[in-house]
Amino acid sequence: MEGVPHEADTVSVGEFTFECGEAVPDLELSYEAYGEFTGDNAVLVCHALTGSAHVAGRRRRGGTDTAGQARAWWDDIVGAGKAIDTASYYVVCVNVPGSCYGSSGPSSEGPDGEPWGTDFPPVTVGDWTRAQRRLLDRLGVPNLHAVVGGSVGGMNALDWAKRHPDHVDRVIPVATAARLDPQIVALDGIARRAITADGAWQGGDYYGGPRPEHGLAIARQIGHVTYLSKSSMSDKFGRRSASRDAARDSFPVDPAADFFPYRDVESYLDYQGGKFAERFDPNSYLYLSRAMDNYDLASGHESDADALAAFDGEAMLVSFTGDWHFTVSQAEELADAFRAAGARTAHHVVDSDHGHDAFLVEPDRVGPPLADFLADGVRGKSVTDTADEDGESEFAPVHTSLFG
Amino acid sequence: MEGVPHEADTVSVGEFTFECGEAVPDLELSYEAYGEFTGDNAVLVCHALTGSAHVAGRRRRGGTDTAGQARAWWDDIVGAGKAIDTASYYVVCVNVPGSCYGSSGPSSEGPDGEPWGTDFPPVTVGDWTRAQRRLLDRLGVPNLHAVVGGSVGGMNALDWAKRHPDHVDRVIPVATAARLDPQIVALDGIARRAITADGAWQGGDYYGGPRPEHGLAIARQIGHVTYLSKSSMSDKFGRRSASRDAARDSFPVDPAADFFPYRDVESYLDYQGGKFAERFDPNSYLYLSRAMDNYDLASGHESDADALAAFDGEAMLVSFTGDWHFTVSQAEELADAFRAAGARTAHHVVDSDHGHDAFLVEPDRVGPPLADFLADGVRGKSVTDTADEDGESEFAPVHTSLFG
Repeated sequence: MEGVPHEADTVSVGEFTFECGEAVPDLELSYEAYGEFTGDNAVLVCHALTGSAHVAGRRRRGGTDTAGQARAWWDDIVGAGKAIDTASYYVVCVNVPGSCYGSSGPSSEGPDGEPWGTDFPPVTVGDWTRAQRRLLDRLGVPNLHAVVGGSVGGMNALDWAKRHPDHVDRVIPVATAARLDPQIVALDGIARRAITADGAWQGGDYYGGPRPEHGLAIARQIGHVTYLSKSSMSDKFGRRSASRDAARDSFPVDPAADFFPYRDVESYLDYQGGKFAERFDPNSYLYLSRAMDNYDLASGHESDADALAAFDGEAMLVSFTGDWHFTVSQAEELADAFRAAGARTAHHVVDSDHGHDAFLVEPDRVGPPLADFLADGVRGKSVTDTADEDGESEFAPVHTSLFG
Repeated sequence: MEGVPHEADTVSVGEFTFECGEAVPDLELSYEAYGEFTGDNAVLVCHALTGSAHVAGRRRRGGTDTAGQARAWWDDIVGAGKAIDTASYYVVCVNVPGSCYGSSGPSSEGPDGEPWGTDFPPVTVGDWTRAQRRLLDRLGVPNLHAVVGGSVGGMNALDWAKRHPDHVDRVIPVATAARLDPQIVALDGIARRAITADGAWQGGDYYGGPRPEHGLAIARQIGHVTYLSKSSMSDKFGRRSASRDAARDSFPVDPAADFFPYRDVESYLDYQGGKFAERFDPNSYLYLSRAMDNYDLASGHESDADALAAFDGEAMLVSFTGDWHFTVSQAEELADAFRAAGARTAHHVVDSDHGHDAFLVEPDRVGPPLADFLADGVRGKSVTDTADEDGESEFAPVHTSLFG
């Protein structure tokens, strides 16, 4: 990031009324901005469920020590000379309200000087967009060249096209959908139950005491499985035993368990679940996953296409063949909605075994279409579109990767 | 079941040493038998993870009130005039050791007069086969015309072909695999963590006190999602709100949750999870799911085919296109192993959207090939085989059902 301006700050944007009708007297938003604003080069990057504003750069300035998606989660994509080139674009990322990385949320200080806990108002994806709009106004950015986001960040990007159609030229929803399917809604709901059933959760009032870390780790493990594909898990872990037993005690076990191997896949998930439970706030997980489950592009409209009717920019959907959290089919439905709304649209399908995680771990396949779409729209050199291909053959890799 | 002899009993088969090396002084086995043994007409039915010996018949004689798979779980398939015709066959089903429906397990009385709890020896699928063998000896049944089982009951059936190849003529593994893939192993492991992380679990020593019902309900909900398919969940629930809020308090919730709809899929899973937590023993769930996760047909052999080398009967694999717990591909691998072992083999693929549950809820599609295979082997009229078809087209429905 050398030579490129980088700003990381947390600012108050004043009283904020959420879509639920409840308000906070003083909404704080943590954001990072990279590059120089020239009037027409702003790119808003929307983070995923457990991400932060810290999208790129080795070190978080003045921030706390972070891990996972809180640590420069798209550093392979965003930076000087990278796909989202901070030498050309002014890149802004805002930690969403309800999260725990600097913006107001359940773990931040409420009016009584104590953490809000579950008195914090429920948040929606629409609230994220509205908060981002407030922040951009403050930064003096009226229009966006592009909004890009992956996973629920992609829903956030969709919401921009719906809510501010005249202020966004290009939208890039990555690995996302107009709404979650009931299978994923179910798994998210089960994950939340693991948190609230943890005795340490205490109705959300655990700050200063023991945290519901087992519940949060279980929630994360459920989520983690949905981020990987059947075949990537087979390739990565097989049925191998873990090489070290170190994490076996992450959860209580009984003596009978010792007869059976502690498998690599368990060890991996225990390690990841434990690390996540340390870095993330359990109430934030409840809040943000509810926002994701509840998001529906068509809400308030007749259809997805109707919701996008006023958008006359360009859209590039990016989806991944091995992703069962947000499927290629769901992205194709979105592409159809943009097409029906009259937007110039491309649906770029990436053949990848990495499941939903692909948008984070396949920068070599995500970067080129991103860069070219930012520069040249749907006519960008590396941008492909399902409408140009034979519909049948195009989806074949999904099946191979999941059932191979 | 009128006119057909029906026996339901729990008998002691004496001291039993499990594969782990530990022994119980007196293994009790609960079983049911239907029909009359004529010397060559015995069919062993192996139940699934949470099933019981009560495979058919409206009322359990002298038994306790049961629900779910404990209540005549295959009544559509087993009975007089049904696919597994108790007027022709002598049908036996044994509750597996480690379970909680009459056979010895963690919840049954140990030597000190208290429930075994987690001092009960770890059990394996091989132990189930060995216990069933003991029971059949006692019933005077040396040879089996057939062994049939679904899900982990299918692994149990496979284990019979491997362990007693000369005493089984026909084997019918339904909706099963030679071993679980790591995705399902992961989800099962997470489910067990939900149980052991429940404060009420108390290292397994909860008998007489509060039971870890939240943990068990969460475990069941995770399992339940793996029994359904993406498309069956979409068809069944969509994103509808629940018509009644009755079960919303199954788990602790915070006020912020009330802003969001309580969805049908959540209501369904809360209801099912709660019902299951009432009927099943949490420790048994730990024990039996570990047995399933650990099962590997090839164990002790070079390959699956090698493990089946001595089996020279006939095999019919039955799999379901929408099943992602035990996939069609896994069943095809099993079919290949039987073929390589020289057994007359058919792999009958049922086109169904019902996911793994299909083996229970699609009796009209499962019954005919079962009946015909029992009567005529792989040449049975309704029996189809993947080897007779075009390999490519055959798997198409899997993809359609999961990604449609």
